[in-house]
Amino acid sequence: MTDTTHDVIGIGNAIVDVIARIEDDVLADQDIPKGAMMLVERERSGAIYGSLGETTERSGGSVANTMAALGALGRRSAYIGKVRDDDFGAVFGHDIRAAGVSFDAPAATAGEATGRCMVMVTPDAERTMATYLGVAVDLGPDDVDAGAVAGSGILYLEGYLWDKPAAKDAFRRAMHVAHEAGRKVALSLSDSFCVDRHRESFREIVAGQIDILLANEGELLSLYETEDLDAALDAVAKDVQVAAITRGAEGAVVVSGGERVMVPAYPVETLVDTTGAGDLFAAGFLNGMATGRSPETCGRMGCAAANVVIQVLGARCSEALTARFEAEGWA
Amino acid sequence: MTDTTHDVIGIGNAIVDVIARIEDDVLADQDIPKGAMMLVERERSGAIYGSLGETTERSGGSVANTMAALGALGRRSAYIGKVRDDDFGAVFGHDIRAAGVSFDAPAATAGEATGRCMVMVTPDAERTMATYLGVAVDLGPDDVDAGAVAGSGILYLEGYLWDKPAAKDAFRRAMHVAHEAGRKVALSLSDSFCVDRHRESFREIVAGQIDILLANEGELLSLYETEDLDAALDAVAKDVQVAAITRGAEGAVVVSGGERVMVPAYPVETLVDTTGAGDLFAAGFLNGMATGRSPETCGRMGCAAANVVIQVLGARCSEALTARFEAEGWA
Repeated sequence: MTDTTHDVIGIGNAIVDVIARIEDDVLADQDIPKGAMMLVERERSGAIYGSLGETTERSGGSVANTMAALGALGRRSAYIGKVRDDDFGAVFGHDIRAAGVSFDAPAATAGEATGRCMVMVTPDAERTMATYLGVAVDLGPDDVDAGAVAGSGILYLEGYLWDKPAAKDAFRRAMHVAHEAGRKVALSLSDSFCVDRHRESFREIVAGQIDILLANEGELLSLYETEDLDAALDAVAKDVQVAAITRGAEGAVVVSGGERVMVPAYPVETLVDTTGAGDLFAAGFLNGMATGRSPETCGRMGCAAANVVIQVLGARCSEALTARFEAEGWA
Repeated sequence: MTDTTHDVIGIGNAIVDVIARIEDDVLADQDIPKGAMMLVERERSGAIYGSLGETTERSGGSVANTMAALGALGRRSAYIGKVRDDDFGAVFGHDIRAAGVSFDAPAATAGEATGRCMVMVTPDAERTMATYLGVAVDLGPDDVDAGAVAGSGILYLEGYLWDKPAAKDAFRRAMHVAHEAGRKVALSLSDSFCVDRHRESFREIVAGQIDILLANEGELLSLYETEDLDAALDAVAKDVQVAAITRGAEGAVVVSGGERVMVPAYPVETLVDTTGAGDLFAAGFLNGMATGRSPETCGRMGCAAANVVIQVLGARCSEALTARFEAEGWA
């Protein structure tokens, strides 16, 4: 196994978040299940946008959020995803590069617009998402830079990629390249609804090809079709080397080498918006893995990063994150 | 004088704000005077953008911020400004309409991109702006909907319009139409640097054609080329019917009918970013004028609106503003 050029490389849907504070009845009116990430077509996306009040735009995308945070924490990071040569594409590229992440692919000059996700934050700080993937769905195996994947210590993938055939092929190709090069492959299950859509495939991949699994409790229960967390943790321990399962205000459980470590959540001063909590947990956790920390410290880093992001609007928080890790003595 | 269709109509540069937190040395490196609003060309705009970390995008534009706030406060409001048919143009149009403001002109299908302003917030919460006006500079007299201006109780203009010849002509035409219809004309001096650029013209307009003047202390002193606030207040009292002069943490002075009313600023719990303070003061003040309040209450409404916006990131705060005015018993 050769030296790495990057600590982590991520592949995901490149998305700009369009964030709006809403009342619960907007979700009812638009027939959107609260807390979900729903895929919508362009027209539906426009209709939902029209129903929202003032918005704030910030770069997003689940794996992209994780990679931006890893870049801010000083890890050598790279990202693969697809944007158009439009305003949102420019914003996405700027923000991920500003976090120190390599993002080299040129923006597409044709096809759909850069993907966008309506992030609707209700008064309880819960977020519900409606995503128009746009040009992100054109991500395919040819977009996977095999040299970059083979040169990265960890390949990090999002379950959302499984929603589109070409992205699924890119996902498979990247896993193959990473394993051939003796690298680790990490997967985020992304969302319970996503797990529902692809349970069979995910079970097969998790059992056979994933080294590190990131999921929340609901996603894990859905994956193994059980209501018993204990049973699900036993199952995942057999399937992967390391699993980090987040439990909201309860913190996280890290399963590694036959052991379980419980990590408590950090206290929250002002809960602003839960957007990015899972993505930032993943960043903190993978930051720990990439720097050779114990499973418990990896879990603590995940919980600390999640704690930072839920106290800001949106899923990007590089400056606050860096300050927090310095304060914790992890920098 | 006929009934009005709108309480206030505003004309300004339609801009999307690109907000970044920075350290002071970024301004030094980019040779940008702290606290200023600087106009930049496209290339320079790109270079500054490249020097910034993560950004947040929110609709902006001085008069547009004021109009969005007036819309949120329930005033019948309309806006005239120019955007392109790009992502930022769509965001601008969505946000101002979402605030209940009429914004009818179609987006331009050719020409420069929608204007954008790099808003750089230093650790002291001061904001420094570099604006690429883009297609906003194509705003001309033909864009002034004479019927809408004649039907609005107050016409509100920004000094920034004076920076470009076509916009200046639009400004003059709108003033003429408003006065012919027996309406009031209000002007924001916008920025001390803007006053420096156009002092002679502004002196002439303020003395001859403006009914309501909005300015901060620095702009007023610059307009009358004095360092004596007392002298400047005497001068402006002779020139206009009503002037509202903001003094930052000192609050505001309202000059009306030969009297001066001092209005204290409201206490600030968490100063986030001063972007939009002047624009929101204008909104609160014009809201008072449009609803027939006393000069003192108009000033208090201005101070309350400014107080709301400096405790959020960016210059739009409809929801918090509406809640605040309800709490004050002004709704």
